Amino acid sequence: MADNGILITFSGPSGSGKDTVLSKLVEKRNDAKISISMTTRKPRNGEIDGTHYYFVNREYFEKKIAADGMLEYAEYAGNLYGTPKEPVDEMLRAGKAVILEIEVQGAEKIRKLYPDVVSIFLMPPSVRVLEERLRGRNTEDEETINHRLVIAREEIRKASDYDYVVINDTIENAVARIETIIDAERLKTSRNKKIISEVINNV
Amino acid sequence: MADNGILITFSGPSGSGKDTVLSKLVEKRNDAKISISMTTRKPRNGEIDGTHYYFVNREYFEKKIAADGMLEYAEYAGNLYGTPKEPVDEMLRAGKAVILEIEVQGAEKIRKLYPDVVSIFLMPPSVRVLEERLRGRNTEDEETINHRLVIAREEIRKASDYDYVVINDTIENAVARIETIIDAERLKTSRNKKIISEVINNV
Repeated sequence: MADNGILITFSGPSGSGKDTVLSKLVEKRNDAKISISMTTRKPRNGEIDGTHYYFVNREYFEKKIAADGMLEYAEYAGNLYGTPKEPVDEMLRAGKAVILEIEVQGAEKIRKLYPDVVSIFLMPPSVRVLEERLRGRNTEDEETINHRLVIAREEIRKASDYDYVVINDTIENAVARIETIIDAERLKTSRNKKIISEVINNV
Repeated sequence: MADNGILITFSGPSGSGKDTVLSKLVEKRNDAKISISMTTRKPRNGEIDGTHYYFVNREYFEKKIAADGMLEYAEYAGNLYGTPKEPVDEMLRAGKAVILEIEVQGAEKIRKLYPDVVSIFLMPPSVRVLEERLRGRNTEDEETINHRLVIAREEIRKASDYDYVVINDTIENAVARIETIIDAERLKTSRNKKIISEVINNV
């Protein structure tokens, strides 16, 4: 992995505001990029290939797996989802903070493969706020909402496995906290070995 | 250790500007405090007990050691120097970032005792700049300056053992970087266990 790039996994329960926070972040910072997942599921209305996902067929996806071309992948409801290695590596080499929006299990996999990864958990200020947000969407029935809240509690219990926890009280605060994390991670000695040796050698 | 306090070791070669940077930092931030060392050496002109050091006699210092009252200590040129535990613990309980300005060996000792510690290495932009700063002081002869530069190079080689490296190009930049580190460390899940359980329990 590049000396200066930062690989970040970003998780949080449904309704925690991951998409909004990430899109504000990359709007603000040119050194932060979101990794685009690859999937074999069909695009939904409005979804654009190369923006929301790379939409591919199963044969292509399986070839990628066989060629060790996926950082991680998993199967849900008959479809494959995963993170292609190549674009991530390329952005890391360019010194970017590369963010994988990924669920709890995927983040665990990445953590085992890349001990250097920085993991961030986005959390609602309370489960009550999460409930209000889910109801506010007006897209799900009572049963679905209750199911999502059960899952959310389980996921939040996993937050302790992450390096950082960011509370999404306001989008601006949450974005600023992630920026702070990126800025601090750039000061880690493990990412500054080159500079340390340059200082010693009087470059 | 308290859930929210942060223990920080702060090292850097002679002439890197540790004192100036730290005093600016604590001036700016009420949540950052410098730990005051204890020593058996006599106060120099202008040194104030309880500000620069706690000046004590050897008997008192040795009793502290025996009572497990020192975080770390070492002997130099016939004098004992060390960090008393009690004030550090008290500031940590109050949620402060407690900074121990300590040389490389002391920082290593603390790291072994407290895996939770955050270690910061302050570095000059180059050894050349360090040399200019040491000469600029006009207090040391050629031989002393050369000796200090040899030591500085050895110390900078140890920088990789630290968590973070902060380059002191300007005091303002260096202080801002340390603030970023403190802010990010406050977002570590290990320091937010209480908040995570409150969110789950809908407090």
